[in-house]
Amino acid sequence: MSSAVVLLSGGLDSCVTLAIAKQENDEVYALTFDYGQRHEKEVESAKRLAEHFGVKKHMILRIPLEEVAESALTREEEPIPEHGTVEEMTITIPPTYVPGRNIVLLSYALSWAESVHADFIYIGAHTQDYSGYPDCRPEFLKAFQNMANLGTRRGAEGRQIELKYPIINMAKSEIISKGRELEVPFELTWSCYEGGEKACGKCDSCMFRLKGFEELGLEDPLEYES
Amino acid sequence: MSSAVVLLSGGLDSCVTLAIAKQENDEVYALTFDYGQRHEKEVESAKRLAEHFGVKKHMILRIPLEEVAESALTREEEPIPEHGTVEEMTITIPPTYVPGRNIVLLSYALSWAESVHADFIYIGAHTQDYSGYPDCRPEFLKAFQNMANLGTRRGAEGRQIELKYPIINMAKSEIISKGRELEVPFELTWSCYEGGEKACGKCDSCMFRLKGFEELGLEDPLEYES
Repeated sequence: MSSAVVLLSGGLDSCVTLAIAKQENDEVYALTFDYGQRHEKEVESAKRLAEHFGVKKHMILRIPLEEVAESALTREEEPIPEHGTVEEMTITIPPTYVPGRNIVLLSYALSWAESVHADFIYIGAHTQDYSGYPDCRPEFLKAFQNMANLGTRRGAEGRQIELKYPIINMAKSEIISKGRELEVPFELTWSCYEGGEKACGKCDSCMFRLKGFEELGLEDPLEYES
Repeated sequence: MSSAVVLLSGGLDSCVTLAIAKQENDEVYALTFDYGQRHEKEVESAKRLAEHFGVKKHMILRIPLEEVAESALTREEEPIPEHGTVEEMTITIPPTYVPGRNIVLLSYALSWAESVHADFIYIGAHTQDYSGYPDCRPEFLKAFQNMANLGTRRGAEGRQIELKYPIINMAKSEIISKGRELEVPFELTWSCYEGGEKACGKCDSCMFRLKGFEELGLEDPLEYES
């Protein structure tokens, strides 16, 4: 019997990660955060995905990250950048970086995993698209593992809660391929940074997603504006 | 100009840590958490201490830690243990251990420190009394530093936010001595695990505190039951 806590944002990456965790474990707990993102569409997607995959428990936590963290994702006044090409945006840390985000989210996942006696934590971080996010890099995730081993009862007792990041080195098209293999309902996922009725098709997140489907010669089942 | 974020629970240890941070920095930000502890007395103490020390900003964050973490501190039904002697309780991880607590709290501090451009984070962790808490050990704190350096923009840019734990190796009596030296208002601090009108004088936390004052031949200015 193995069990896992999965960080489920409602986006494509975390959905594929959830599908992988379901395949590899007997019981899966899904953890979704509402931290003052601009819209609730992601959270709604997460609910539908948790139901689709029949998780043991889906926890939606409202956390006050926006009170301490400054970012274009959580502040109304700052515009989210639009880009002409994918190439332009991968050089430096993007303005959508939220200080400490994955550290805070993984900390809650760790606390929950220890409380429900889960063996693994799955996170859908990957380095291919957003190489600029420091908290998506494997070296960060390894350091988090080491810290978790030293800072928890489980770790102190030599039974670590293992952090898994199965899509870390996949390009978007590979993540989509993996998702198709696992019969992921892409139409239930939400990647767009905007909270419109349909996905905008223009923000970084939409562009990476559309490019991924395009590279595979597939059509994204999600509806887009225009 | 140096600035610091200080974790301020309202207890004696964090109060002395705040006094040290004030002495060492030009600007101090105090961060207090309300995470479903059994009572609000600690938070009230934190407010009075932040005012006393004239911090630049005092943030009180309500975080849903109790929704994910199981502990005697956050669950009503579990009794908080009383002990006859101090010696009995330092061997194993105490039932008051909250899974991932310091990891979650430090993560928010890190996010805030990066957002307000603080140079340091101060935490009043120490190993002398509660040797059983894995997330109070220096090796854990060092691992958190390493993780923070890899997972933040500041760290990625080579300008780490430095974690400071100035009382880590002090016994309670030494912490009290240091506090006296810095003219800490002990009467404004609250250490008791119970939320009574006066401190109970019986829980682990009260006992360590009383023992510390006693060792110095001093009287604790806080009022105790009976």
